[in-house]
Amino acid sequence: MFESAEVGHAIDKKTFRKEEEALRGELLLAQNALREQGKSPVVVLISGVDGAGKGETIAQLYEWLDPRFLSTQAFAEPSDEEREHPFMWRYWRALPPKGRIGIFSGSWYSIPIAERIARTLSHGKLDNRLDQINRFESMLVNEGARVLKFWFHLSRDGQVERLKKLEKNPRTAWRVTKLSWARTKTYDELQDVAGHVLRVTNTAAAPWIIVDGTDDNYRNLRVGRALLDALNASLANNAKPPVAPAAPLVARIDDRNVISALDLSQTISEKKYGLELAKWQGRLSELSRHKKFAGRSLVLAFEGMDAAGKGGAIRRVTAALDPRQFQIVPIAAPTDEERAQPYLWRFWRHIPRQGRVTVFDRSWYGRVLVERIEGFCGEADWLRAYAEINDFEHELVEAGAIVMKFWLQIDKAEQMRRFKEREKIEHKRFKITAEDWRNRKKWNAYQQAAVDLIDRTSTGKAPWIAIEANDKNFARVKILKAICLHLEKALG
Amino acid sequence: MFESAEVGHAIDKKTFRKEEEALRGELLLAQNALREQGKSPVVVLISGVDGAGKGETIAQLYEWLDPRFLSTQAFAEPSDEEREHPFMWRYWRALPPKGRIGIFSGSWYSIPIAERIARTLSHGKLDNRLDQINRFESMLVNEGARVLKFWFHLSRDGQVERLKKLEKNPRTAWRVTKLSWARTKTYDELQDVAGHVLRVTNTAAAPWIIVDGTDDNYRNLRVGRALLDALNASLANNAKPPVAPAAPLVARIDDRNVISALDLSQTISEKKYGLELAKWQGRLSELSRHKKFAGRSLVLAFEGMDAAGKGGAIRRVTAALDPRQFQIVPIAAPTDEERAQPYLWRFWRHIPRQGRVTVFDRSWYGRVLVERIEGFCGEADWLRAYAEINDFEHELVEAGAIVMKFWLQIDKAEQMRRFKEREKIEHKRFKITAEDWRNRKKWNAYQQAAVDLIDRTSTGKAPWIAIEANDKNFARVKILKAICLHLEKALG
Repeated sequence: MFESAEVGHAIDKKTFRKEEEALRGELLLAQNALREQGKSPVVVLISGVDGAGKGETIAQLYEWLDPRFLSTQAFAEPSDEEREHPFMWRYWRALPPKGRIGIFSGSWYSIPIAERIARTLSHGKLDNRLDQINRFESMLVNEGARVLKFWFHLSRDGQVERLKKLEKNPRTAWRVTKLSWARTKTYDELQDVAGHVLRVTNTAAAPWIIVDGTDDNYRNLRVGRALLDALNASLANNAKPPVAPAAPLVARIDDRNVISALDLSQTISEKKYGLELAKWQGRLSELSRHKKFAGRSLVLAFEGMDAAGKGGAIRRVTAALDPRQFQIVPIAAPTDEERAQPYLWRFWRHIPRQGRVTVFDRSWYGRVLVERIEGFCGEADWLRAYAEINDFEHELVEAGAIVMKFWLQIDKAEQMRRFKEREKIEHKRFKITAEDWRNRKKWNAYQQAAVDLIDRTSTGKAPWIAIEANDKNFARVKILKAICLHLEKALG
Repeated sequence: MFESAEVGHAIDKKTFRKEEEALRGELLLAQNALREQGKSPVVVLISGVDGAGKGETIAQLYEWLDPRFLSTQAFAEPSDEEREHPFMWRYWRALPPKGRIGIFSGSWYSIPIAERIARTLSHGKLDNRLDQINRFESMLVNEGARVLKFWFHLSRDGQVERLKKLEKNPRTAWRVTKLSWARTKTYDELQDVAGHVLRVTNTAAAPWIIVDGTDDNYRNLRVGRALLDALNASLANNAKPPVAPAAPLVARIDDRNVISALDLSQTISEKKYGLELAKWQGRLSELSRHKKFAGRSLVLAFEGMDAAGKGGAIRRVTAALDPRQFQIVPIAAPTDEERAQPYLWRFWRHIPRQGRVTVFDRSWYGRVLVERIEGFCGEADWLRAYAEINDFEHELVEAGAIVMKFWLQIDKAEQMRRFKEREKIEHKRFKITAEDWRNRKKWNAYQQAAVDLIDRTSTGKAPWIAIEANDKNFARVKILKAICLHLEKALG
């Protein structure tokens, strides 16, 4: 793996100066064009052994580029807020938006590698994490980002030499800590683990670039040129590298599906509704104050046809919760900060910390509903979204979140009745817009998309619950009860 | 203070039902109009004694309003990230944007009141904090927000009764904790301290509304109606209540001022520049790794005429720092999320945590520079900005930040020379735009504004340093040296 990084690369000062001058001009122009045109961001990971020049090369990039539009993220111990969120949350928050370059010094690879060397992470768990990382990076690339992963290598002797040299120079001595020397003792383990990690994550979408760290000039030019290539590729818009196509949807043979199988005629009497509502709201209120819930969180997503009663159902759920504990996130058009990021970013930013609840009124499933139907994204994009969404929810669940998704189903006649009712009542009139009428014309397409998303993203840990919602009260009780039973199971 | 909240208010069920129906409809319509029209946000603080129904009233508001566009923030112990920022940072982050209602359950008043009762805050310090709060709220109101401050009161006996009643009901028993009972012991202290706090912060811009907490119906209607009034006022756009006008600028008698007094002919030789640059960069590098700096932070703001050399100077400063430690924030047009907040919000979000450095390339002073000159805000707005900016920087300094502001001054001829030079060099061409030429025509206005901002906002703790920048190298050395000396003093 690291062989060709040990053959001895060096570039003399004169050659470097000459190359540098041209490179710097090109980098500046490309960086500026990227920003002005709002092109895909470039994510640069700088990893490798101690003393291999990670800090020096980052400093060099700051000299070459316009540092105002460059950011470097370093990740030490997670903060308490970060510890209460999924592993990837801190990295999601730090992603560069469109038009920018973001350097990660210490990335999502650092913790798994360190934990594997310390043997606090099993080989199997490491591979699970690497698989998640591959999927995450492939999502980033599919969303248009360029991902550049550098591994700075040194031979065992080379490392000792470099560290000594750094220590001698008073300007760089501080970079060498006791920990740096301690880590030379685990050189072999690092080579082993890193070798494995690099092999498994050396994907077509985001390959590793192994760089000999010995010679400053060589290393810096190597990184600078690779960055220039990435910038130019982003500018040329020869956008996405070929990725394995998502599995196409299978054509259906009959009309039997999870939605057509629902019995929408189910109702509940006013009296029973009152009793059941009080019962399950009381139960939910208790569960939300359960001492085990303090270490978990709850993520609820509501989807359904217009006027299916999502808002009313959400009110009945949140009425059982302490307002200081929950947040309802209504999904409308993304803000411009959100548009500059991968489509899941705006949901990541609302993920609850421990002991909290986030209710999404419409959700990340917009990607495979409205975006699919209206053609806001390409077919390949929404096809891959099923797997990306499964990954996203998997990470939430892994971090202790309890995830549930509700599809509220009404029939076409009931929707018409509600549209008309809304137009009559003054304080409901604003709820009905021209868009609702337009969407109604695409009823069948939405039904089809709904069946697909339930089929493809309902998992044991993050289930879809289809709700018969022609009778609002019936729907509300069914939702509350489902949440309570799922929570009870999850909290043991 | 609390007398009229003890005369006994109660509203019977029938009256309540009738009033509620009308109120709810109006609230919903107003809330929706606020959102659709993106009108000024409403900030609702709910404070008061234990058992006075804070939680119940918030729950009532969630029933009346559309909960999807309502958020409630509760502030318990600060997180480690929050502790490393100024006191107000967590509240700034939680402000509702335009079109929204934000409830604060436990606001910026909670900690000062609790600390004063525990006697960990002196009377004098309390008053300082209240003064800061008054200025903060007045800024919010001037920025268009409605600030509703409710204090829920109970008599001593009334409190004991309410707590007992809550404890008896299994649905509400959990609300009464040991702490609630413990706090009944300090009833008198709370009345004393709260009485003082309410008096001092009962401003014209954001007056307190004291509410008798005994009767649920009365309390909820009182709050609901006040909220409706605030929403309607925001919708009616009878925008800002009369605030004391900011002191006008004093006309000048001659042309002597901090800028005209600069000797722009100062230069430094190439050789001396090399030596001095290395010296001060080395010193800055050491200071940034000083063990005391780990508990402080550094905020640098750069302003100056176009082409004055801000970018180049910033590069020389950051070259001495670890890229993982600093962030350069170039100020351009605000994003739409930023536009929905008070003008200082977009700077608050970038305030560094401890051990970190943020360099602003242009800054909050845009308010009294470009916004003043181009008329992007009214005269009253930029006039009050001087005091608001002083308050903002004062809070930073109080929290341990080291704050410095640089004005880079060149003369008109030098600017022309640089504009022409930029047009010649390919990788600098993008730096010169039509706007730069337009701004040049307003040279005198910018100079005048610069003199005003230095005169009005240069303080011992957050000084302005005017830099003679006709010779770029001279400017860079002067800036680096100033930062080092200021840091040395600050770190003792």
